[in-house]
Amino acid sequence: MTEPTAQERSTGPTPPTNSFASDNASGVAPQVMAALAEANTGSALAYGDDDWTRRAEATLDELLGRHVETLLCWGGTGANVVGLASVLQPFQSIITVDSAHIVVDECGAPVRFSGSSLHTAPNADGKLLPDAIDEFAHWLGSEHHPQPAVVSVSQATEMGTCYSLDELAAVCDRAHAHSMRVHLDGARIANALAAADTSLATMVAQTGVDVMTLGMTKNGAMYGEAVVFLDPDLARHARFVRKQAGQLPSKARFVAAQLLALLDDDLWLHHASHANAMATLLARSTEGLEGVELVREPQVNSVFVRLPRERIEALQAWSFFWDWDLSDRLMRWMTSWATTTQDVEQFRNGVAHLLDDD
Amino acid sequence: MTEPTAQERSTGPTPPTNSFASDNASGVAPQVMAALAEANTGSALAYGDDDWTRRAEATLDELLGRHVETLLCWGGTGANVVGLASVLQPFQSIITVDSAHIVVDECGAPVRFSGSSLHTAPNADGKLLPDAIDEFAHWLGSEHHPQPAVVSVSQATEMGTCYSLDELAAVCDRAHAHSMRVHLDGARIANALAAADTSLATMVAQTGVDVMTLGMTKNGAMYGEAVVFLDPDLARHARFVRKQAGQLPSKARFVAAQLLALLDDDLWLHHASHANAMATLLARSTEGLEGVELVREPQVNSVFVRLPRERIEALQAWSFFWDWDLSDRLMRWMTSWATTTQDVEQFRNGVAHLLDDD
Amino acid sequence: MTEPTAQERSTGPTPPTNSFASDNASGVAPQVMAALAEANTGSALAYGDDDWTRRAEATLDELLGRHVETLLCWGGTGANVVGLASVLQPFQSIITVDSAHIVVDECGAPVRFSGSSLHTAPNADGKLLPDAIDEFAHWLGSEHHPQPAVVSVSQATEMGTCYSLDELAAVCDRAHAHSMRVHLDGARIANALAAADTSLATMVAQTGVDVMTLGMTKNGAMYGEAVVFLDPDLARHARFVRKQAGQLPSKARFVAAQLLALLDDDLWLHHASHANAMATLLARSTEGLEGVELVREPQVNSVFVRLPRERIEALQAWSFFWDWDLSDRLMRWMTSWATTTQDVEQFRNGVAHLLDDD
Amino acid sequence: MTEPTAQERSTGPTPPTNSFASDNASGVAPQVMAALAEANTGSALAYGDDDWTRRAEATLDELLGRHVETLLCWGGTGANVVGLASVLQPFQSIITVDSAHIVVDECGAPVRFSGSSLHTAPNADGKLLPDAIDEFAHWLGSEHHPQPAVVSVSQATEMGTCYSLDELAAVCDRAHAHSMRVHLDGARIANALAAADTSLATMVAQTGVDVMTLGMTKNGAMYGEAVVFLDPDLARHARFVRKQAGQLPSKARFVAAQLLALLDDDLWLHHASHANAMATLLARSTEGLEGVELVREPQVNSVFVRLPRERIEALQAWSFFWDWDLSDRLMRWMTSWATTTQDVEQFRNGVAHLLDDD
Repeated sequence: MTEPTAQERSTGPTPPTNSFASDNASGVAPQVMAALAEANTGSALAYGDDDWTRRAEATLDELLGRHVETLLCWGGTGANVVGLASVLQPFQSIITVDSAHIVVDECGAPVRFSGSSLHTAPNADGKLLPDAIDEFAHWLGSEHHPQPAVVSVSQATEMGTCYSLDELAAVCDRAHAHSMRVHLDGARIANALAAADTSLATMVAQTGVDVMTLGMTKNGAMYGEAVVFLDPDLARHARFVRKQAGQLPSKARFVAAQLLALLDDDLWLHHASHANAMATLLARSTEGLEGVELVREPQVNSVFVRLPRERIEALQAWSFFWDWDLSDRLMRWMTSWATTTQDVEQFRNGVAHLLDDD
Repeated sequence: MTEPTAQERSTGPTPPTNSFASDNASGVAPQVMAALAEANTGSALAYGDDDWTRRAEATLDELLGRHVETLLCWGGTGANVVGLASVLQPFQSIITVDSAHIVVDECGAPVRFSGSSLHTAPNADGKLLPDAIDEFAHWLGSEHHPQPAVVSVSQATEMGTCYSLDELAAVCDRAHAHSMRVHLDGARIANALAAADTSLATMVAQTGVDVMTLGMTKNGAMYGEAVVFLDPDLARHARFVRKQAGQLPSKARFVAAQLLALLDDDLWLHHASHANAMATLLARSTEGLEGVELVREPQVNSVFVRLPRERIEALQAWSFFWDWDLSDRLMRWMTSWATTTQDVEQFRNGVAHLLDDD
Repeated sequence: MTEPTAQERSTGPTPPTNSFASDNASGVAPQVMAALAEANTGSALAYGDDDWTRRAEATLDELLGRHVETLLCWGGTGANVVGLASVLQPFQSIITVDSAHIVVDECGAPVRFSGSSLHTAPNADGKLLPDAIDEFAHWLGSEHHPQPAVVSVSQATEMGTCYSLDELAAVCDRAHAHSMRVHLDGARIANALAAADTSLATMVAQTGVDVMTLGMTKNGAMYGEAVVFLDPDLARHARFVRKQAGQLPSKARFVAAQLLALLDDDLWLHHASHANAMATLLARSTEGLEGVELVREPQVNSVFVRLPRERIEALQAWSFFWDWDLSDRLMRWMTSWATTTQDVEQFRNGVAHLLDDD
Repeated sequence: MTEPTAQERSTGPTPPTNSFASDNASGVAPQVMAALAEANTGSALAYGDDDWTRRAEATLDELLGRHVETLLCWGGTGANVVGLASVLQPFQSIITVDSAHIVVDECGAPVRFSGSSLHTAPNADGKLLPDAIDEFAHWLGSEHHPQPAVVSVSQATEMGTCYSLDELAAVCDRAHAHSMRVHLDGARIANALAAADTSLATMVAQTGVDVMTLGMTKNGAMYGEAVVFLDPDLARHARFVRKQAGQLPSKARFVAAQLLALLDDDLWLHHASHANAMATLLARSTEGLEGVELVREPQVNSVFVRLPRERIEALQAWSFFWDWDLSDRLMRWMTSWATTTQDVEQFRNGVAHLLDDD
């Protein structure tokens, strides 16, 4: 599906400035832009041998209250690849849910690079249930079977849901009981932390996640993601894996500067809280409209709705958003750090207008 | 080798503001910073479905005088992987020189991702001689041998040399005679074009290169590289390969905006000419100094010198640069778009001072 | 699970000469042994450039009534890898059922070698339902998703069931409607053909399978499997893939001679019919025994039963067989070309004795 | 090049029964055939859980005077892949010579499966010089470079030469000094042992090889090769790697039985001595012929000669052999366990006849 051209757009109320297509359709936060400008001063050795990178690493240690290994990468798919391939042998495999980003939305990147198979369990509202791990664990030890060694979860999930600390701990406990590691895809970890009103240190300490990505781009950065190895021993191959995966940033100071800006004074969590609040506002504003069926109370920054089949195209043409499952009339509206209450109001008005159109 | 700490630095003249360590140690050009700020306006769909990307693609078509396929990527290693893997089957292989970046400096990324073997010929001042292709071409057709299908050259080379148009055409002709494709690693293509005082369109038309990378980062960008398929048919798998290689930028408008800024009014070539001129100036300024042995007249933006073994560390401590082959006392000094005549003068003074030190 | 040692064995009736552990626990058919001896005469060029291989290829063409490409390989896992990787690009993927041999029993070989992801649908008695293909087909065309390009089925399935010609045709039609190819894992294709009382030519012609393995080892050979590309165009990379996958037999005449022996006078189908008949006899002989719960009427050469949990170990110790799902008390008894009616009788007596033991 | 058809053959003296094309053009030794027949008795669990395999493993332990891990595989390419991939991480790489089988003759199998790069040094009569290791060793520790972790040598080499124990020890010492492991491709290890009149235990103990293949097929077996991990700790992933590489034999007893037959009463060494002696005889018989230029005194079972360009085709048509480097008129004649003195005499007569032909 491509963005509609001007002539495809229906007339209607003024569309919102910030679309509800995705959180990566938004731009870059002003504090991040300022940090990029500040970092643009003189020479700095490339590939992470610079002061910004050293400060970013130290800041993560501080944030988590212990020494961790932080590796800056270019993007979310690459960061997942680096995190997973660093802790896997190619004959080992990954257990996750069928809706995971690493299964559906990375064109098979983790599999091709790592050589590891992906085993998928049905998702429960986007989440992996601990019992699903057992389904594959009995393969361990026999040379005939792929050897599951990593359980991968997303927090928040692709379905806009979050694991509670207890739920996440249960997954980690089950994985660890089978000597598996837990990988957390944290492209939207800030939204999950904000929703649970907890800190990253707490979430990590109370669950036992072993390696995670820390999403920046969807939360106000221009580009860049971090991979964090909570147990530094797990990272002993990681720098080689990152380079071999094409994920070592050249002028790394500019990734580090963005991470520092986001972590400074909890900007990342403020961004996430705001995005989450805008999703709730959007749900409240639209749930009463004729034809809008709210699928689930928003937990983070997405609103899943069912819309009347015959109005979907006109609405997308007016202000674009993605369909999640067209056969089920399921649509996803997504908010971000940049969404304003005026955007929500304008969008609500357009939805009301276009659903009412015939 | 890591950058020396403050206490390791010898006293001496004021070191240059812009170091001669590498062109990716320099910062971001002001026009690029301005373009990033301008692109930061409202929403734009991610992954290249935006106006900046469409304009960048059109600009490349215009620059080359024909329709090409341009894919924006994160970094140089990734762009090489995407270009190579898009035109290779895993049982096919790559012929290049032993000094190539894809052999030496990418931690095996193209090999691991593509599954293809790399065959290396000895380099002639960084360059591949056409006869080297024949050495491997007789493997073609037999299932026992890897099947060479791509010849990869760098322009400019890792040794700071350039293929003349005739030399490059000879490589392309020999490759094509064996039905092989030619990949050009253009991390420093601008420097080569500036040195030859020719255009990209001319170089491509007169040689027959099939797929190339177009370097941005070393030439004033913050990040981002382009892969250009001169024959669009070669790109039919490329978008899938790019995504699977973790090289599809999320907020792609910011990569495109940088490319547009560099191509605007030939800024990329002005940058390259300047860097080249600074290398020549540096060679001229230092070649007469006692102990400095100029290895080769600079062709682009690097100066290769031999230095007295016992002075190397002190000089690196004063203003860092990389040793190229320590056993041979071979050092590389690298200039960039950001190097100033004052940097050259300060560096020359420091070299004079420290070589004269005892 | 390893075979019990002598001292672990309970006393009991004489166990059968040919165990019911698996069809690859049986030995080599006398006609195959004779063919190996006959082929052992003088020199023959290696790697398939020999008369036996040429005759085997011609025999397959004849058997199928058209020109096909037949490649001899070492083993079943390797043959599946060669068949799949020959028709896949690494960003493309495979749709199959969760119980498939390529998912469960090949330690991830097809995934690691091809780079392709495996998508699994729940099996219906071991079989793939056509609708499962649609679940993944909507990914086609978008660079974000793996691109399903091959549907893989097993005939007979791991569960001892067979697709009817109509069922298989329905899978092929659905796959082809999405421009996907159909791979058939035919490790036990002879058993399926015998069960359906049809010929390979008919099965292929009436369904549209594109590439298949033709199992030899489980059906009386010492080693060796064939990959058959029904459409020779699909095989244009296959010889390179086979070599690169380590599946090109050196003294290939000895694989070809076995294949010729099995195809001669329909020996492979006679073997399969016999094995199937022995499974039926075993089911009939044991279904009335106290504690034996027949799970499903045998279609080919396996009998799935549930046994009393507390007697399983003693029975395995007496005459080994594999548990299929211990938590469900599900056991698999497998017959082969070598199984005799006396083996069945002895096994039945042992089961009766040991289930009655307390 | 394919074998000439009958009508392409020139008239001439009766050609030898056993061709000099390759040692894998020969058949199977009678003792091996007998062992295969003997092993064909009743059931035996597949995949190595059988008495023959256990005896073969024990025999290797005995042969080497210590516990080693022996894994049976299908073929030579696969055995090299299993040995190498078991001791490599994908970002690590292999140092070897440009003439190595793993470089030239395995269609890139080790690279594709392991993900590891191959670095090639020029060969010195087929052999690797220790200094070549240093060329790549300075890459160790830097994430930019592939990390050389294995040095691979062939004994005997592709050029028909052998490392002396001292030469091999020097390579091992240099490799170990850089914490690299030594892999030995032993497709013709028996010929090398026979030539040096030493035992495998001595060669291993006095050099320090870490993992090796032990060739069977070229030395009288029908199929099958062994991978031997001299340090069992190195084999901790090896069984999974073997299965994932498609190299785990199903009816493994038949591979083990062949290995036992070859090791019994030193049959493998007698075979090798005989083949070596036949090569020496062939060199002696032909070196005086007009037009035959002996390139090097045979060390094992190959004779390298230069022949008059215009007679090569006629000779190959009469009794086939492979050209090694046609542009240099370099031909390889290969003997085996099956070569007879009559074969040598007949071949010598044909060469004399056909070189004298005009």
